Amino acid sequence: MIRKKGFFISLEGIEGTGKTTQARILAERLGGEGYEVVLTREPGGTVISDRIREILLMPDHREMSPMTELLLYNAARVQHLTEKILPSVRAGKVVITDRFTDSTIAYQSYARGIDPGLIASLDALATGGLRPDLTLLFDLDVETGLRRNRGARKVDRFELEDIEFHRKVRDGYLRIAETEPRRVRMVDASLPAGEVSARVWEIVAAEIRDRTGCAAG
Amino acid sequence: MIRKKGFFISLEGIEGTGKTTQARILAERLGGEGYEVVLTREPGGTVISDRIREILLMPDHREMSPMTELLLYNAARVQHLTEKILPSVRAGKVVITDRFTDSTIAYQSYARGIDPGLIASLDALATGGLRPDLTLLFDLDVETGLRRNRGARKVDRFELEDIEFHRKVRDGYLRIAETEPRRVRMVDASLPAGEVSARVWEIVAAEIRDRTGCAAG
Repeated sequence: MIRKKGFFISLEGIEGTGKTTQARILAERLGGEGYEVVLTREPGGTVISDRIREILLMPDHREMSPMTELLLYNAARVQHLTEKILPSVRAGKVVITDRFTDSTIAYQSYARGIDPGLIASLDALATGGLRPDLTLLFDLDVETGLRRNRGARKVDRFELEDIEFHRKVRDGYLRIAETEPRRVRMVDASLPAGEVSARVWEIVAAEIRDRTGCAAG
Repeated sequence: MIRKKGFFISLEGIEGTGKTTQARILAERLGGEGYEVVLTREPGGTVISDRIREILLMPDHREMSPMTELLLYNAARVQHLTEKILPSVRAGKVVITDRFTDSTIAYQSYARGIDPGLIASLDALATGGLRPDLTLLFDLDVETGLRRNRGARKVDRFELEDIEFHRKVRDGYLRIAETEPRRVRMVDASLPAGEVSARVWEIVAAEIRDRTGCAAG
């Protein structure tokens, strides 16, 4: 039997990259390899965090101040970390979350223009600046991402933003990946879904093997 | 016609002091004197803040982490300040809020035990440390307050806390009043309601006269 040690993975990217589908495929594959897997998402992942998510994503909450938004994301994240992510990792599980702190940095700082120092200070207060062991950044040009999303008929407050906003989000993600190349690994989300999941598995299997000493894949 | 300048008043105290009723009486009296009055409350006061209030006060959210709670209070407050309090004060109105930052300090720090430095840091990030022009602290012994509240059959997450918790809240308030005697004025809430409202009016009329140069009362 393989030795199991907790591992925390986040999937990041603009709208329409297919990361939610890839998260499910990755969870199934890891489960098939014998890992206990927790698949979750932000904002959300717990009863309280899901209620906060509803407030954040409602299209009619256009009057929400940028600081309110930032505090709500952090509130949802702290509850998610405390109640679900940390206990699961401590219990030796692999936690896969669809979005984490990098989303806040890309959307609220790079795109919304909130002072990055303020975001970092709040993150330090709220979560102690905790980051995943591994982050997969699904990169895709903004036009393709939004076109894919429109096909899915999803509408939330962020999908109502203009294309320039989403371009800034993508640039923000690319800057994060440049700054932390060891943690953040790029995935070309323009490839066919099967190739994307093969690439995801290649990265994850190697990382889990390296960091937990377990044989995966 | 009297000259009108904005003024921001908060009412604070443990459960059962009658401050909510006194806020209404004060609003009516100021209105009768020709002031434009905005009567509001925390957590709440805007659509978004009221939604956050629902999450905070639901009795079945017992798993909420202290940090989640603190972030949600700050999120509701920032939205309330930005959307309602500051625009009203700038427009020359008198804003009366049932609870503000002192509640967070009394409940989350003194009673819940969260590091006061952390609460102050978060308050500085979220609101810039803004305080009301005048705070009325309705003081009452805890047993009487809880007995009055039980009579009203109110139940929320805080009313389920034990008596020791509420005692710490009261002590916290008294410490705040000691530290900021100019802003925070004590009101003996054990007196009959009519005497309490007379005392409230005495304080508010004098303060509004001193600070805005208007003749009230």
